[in-house]
Amino acid sequence: MRKVAVVGTGLGKWGVRSATLKELAQEAGKALFDDVEGLPREEVDSLLVGCALAERLAFQSYVAPLVAEQLGINPTRMLARTELACVSGQSALKMAYMAIATGLSDIALVMGLEKMNTPDMSETQTSMACVLDREWEGVNGMTAPPYFAMVAQRHMHEYGTTQEQMAMVSVKNHRFSATNPYAHFPKEVSMNRVLNSPSISPPLNLLDCSGITDGAAAVLLTHGDAAKEMTDTPVFIEGLGQAATGNLTANLPSLTSWPTMRRAVRDALKMAGATIHDMDLAELHDCFTISEIIEYEELGLAEKGKGGRFIEEGQSDIGGKLPINTRGGLLGCGHPLGATGVAQVVEVVQQFKAQVPSQRYVGGEWGLCHNLSGNANNHGVVVLRRGS
Amino acid sequence: MRKVAVVGTGLGKWGVRSATLKELAQEAGKALFDDVEGLPREEVDSLLVGCALAERLAFQSYVAPLVAEQLGINPTRMLARTELACVSGQSALKMAYMAIATGLSDIALVMGLEKMNTPDMSETQTSMACVLDREWEGVNGMTAPPYFAMVAQRHMHEYGTTQEQMAMVSVKNHRFSATNPYAHFPKEVSMNRVLNSPSISPPLNLLDCSGITDGAAAVLLTHGDAAKEMTDTPVFIEGLGQAATGNLTANLPSLTSWPTMRRAVRDALKMAGATIHDMDLAELHDCFTISEIIEYEELGLAEKGKGGRFIEEGQSDIGGKLPINTRGGLLGCGHPLGATGVAQVVEVVQQFKAQVPSQRYVGGEWGLCHNLSGNANNHGVVVLRRGS
Repeated sequence: MRKVAVVGTGLGKWGVRSATLKELAQEAGKALFDDVEGLPREEVDSLLVGCALAERLAFQSYVAPLVAEQLGINPTRMLARTELACVSGQSALKMAYMAIATGLSDIALVMGLEKMNTPDMSETQTSMACVLDREWEGVNGMTAPPYFAMVAQRHMHEYGTTQEQMAMVSVKNHRFSATNPYAHFPKEVSMNRVLNSPSISPPLNLLDCSGITDGAAAVLLTHGDAAKEMTDTPVFIEGLGQAATGNLTANLPSLTSWPTMRRAVRDALKMAGATIHDMDLAELHDCFTISEIIEYEELGLAEKGKGGRFIEEGQSDIGGKLPINTRGGLLGCGHPLGATGVAQVVEVVQQFKAQVPSQRYVGGEWGLCHNLSGNANNHGVVVLRRGS
Repeated sequence: MRKVAVVGTGLGKWGVRSATLKELAQEAGKALFDDVEGLPREEVDSLLVGCALAERLAFQSYVAPLVAEQLGINPTRMLARTELACVSGQSALKMAYMAIATGLSDIALVMGLEKMNTPDMSETQTSMACVLDREWEGVNGMTAPPYFAMVAQRHMHEYGTTQEQMAMVSVKNHRFSATNPYAHFPKEVSMNRVLNSPSISPPLNLLDCSGITDGAAAVLLTHGDAAKEMTDTPVFIEGLGQAATGNLTANLPSLTSWPTMRRAVRDALKMAGATIHDMDLAELHDCFTISEIIEYEELGLAEKGKGGRFIEEGQSDIGGKLPINTRGGLLGCGHPLGATGVAQVVEVVQQFKAQVPSQRYVGGEWGLCHNLSGNANNHGVVVLRRGS
């Protein structure tokens, strides 16, 4: 099996955009082709597009061929869109990884993409019911904010986690996004402001929640031999993990323990031949502040129930045990569902290439990216390593 | 790289069903688990679901985890839905193939699935605009029937193809579907009936068009070593091909020549180390009668423009040059977008296992499956070989 490396990255501006789905893809695609200067488009033989809700929010299925046409590429090996709600983008990366590892593809473009802001935002809100089980939960008003509010309430009840600790996640991630020109929210926020932002679903306030964001992100993958011809700093995909259990809230073993995350992390690290302590930075799925706190625990960085303490001690900040979400996370960058997982990989690669502002520069050799979806029943993990 | 084999198949009844998306998946899943009797569900480590339009027609994204929950499986290796309009199901098969070939997965379930009939069928019709380019073509009324009507008109103009020749495709495929209890249209039709069925978009009549069908199909894949423990007749995936060009009608080089199909066929056969003349049967994408006629030509079975003659001579029937669409094709079985590509593979496997009625039994060793999508700009091919 061939080694697989990320050799290029591209981002467009994230936010409430007037751009269409295809235009968002074009921006990130242009940035990518600028990054891998001189690559003829006809050498890109595969395209995998991660996108969760295009049929509802852009009235468009058949997303991958339209992105191909927009980018001016004609895939001759592998072409598809992947959908796995908030893990859609990472799924596209995994498919592209496999295409190159098997030799079916030599150069694959991975595009994460979502157009979420629509002229009628009630359409967007209603559509969010269909990234959970719409028949059983969505119709009862269960979308992500009330679900994660229950998770937060339960974590507070079981472990004494506080709203202040949750707010610290938002403050940290916004401090990072303030230096990220692609972020939806490139502005610092104070503890006071997070705690006094409007209540969305108690105990979650507005600034505990990631935004409804339009955006795209792209990476280019190739095999080990070709990678070094295309960049001085190939970043290898060393580990992949994925695990899911039943999605219905009633079927979950626990709200505050995510065994499928532990499984996905364990498998990805094992495949990479590394431990969590080898990591230099991590991009975690902070769809809500409470998510990041539980993720510290499931990564094994903090004991169960001590995730709140972990942020309080600054352990997830630069200089702490493991810097987390240096691009600004979903809280600071916004969360265009299909784009998020790809943008996390972009951040790790740009960190390793020292392409990020000094205020959030970490660098290093190992990075881990994590996404979750649905009722946190499904988790995906990618482990990356800087080559030379 | 590991060899990959199909070791089990499952189908539900196709048609206008009152079943929900999840219930359709459950039926095909049950049939699959019955076929691989004794397989503990926890051994299925991956699930790939091909589905094109669930967000619009079932108001449900996050399709793969919901199918997993419905089937009682908890994937620990690979989980995603693939979307590529009418090639969605075949795309899922390809992803599962790669997962097993790389060793990331040991046993993967592939589910093709579509719920197309809705209480308000105008919603279904409108949604069909989003499997083409909705912004540029869908809004102008360009959905599949008018597009393929233009293709048919042009083929008639350029090569003298007749409506009678097109009708013969429908007659043949309905003769096969008449023996297929899972088909939406299990009934023979006469030439006269096809030619006098209501006009949909001239020259295409109703019986020149595949139906709007609810349905699901499933196959189980594993690696070469495990395959022989699970079945006496593993069917190996030997070749994969895929090629796409720009989707807009205005950007297509030709309406009647499909160079991306030739490319996909060539690549899949090359990978398999076979030629089209080695094939014992083929499942082609007869979304409209004219499609199958052009496909004869692009497969190299007939000279360009002589596809009409090919069906007239009975060369695509049992006893002819290459029996095509023995399950009844899209014309006879209906076309639940995501399910079609998987059901084609089911047919080839069941043929090799002599699990089909004698009236349509061909058997043999080699089979080819083909799907197209959009404005026939994208084609995917899978080549299968019976193992022993």
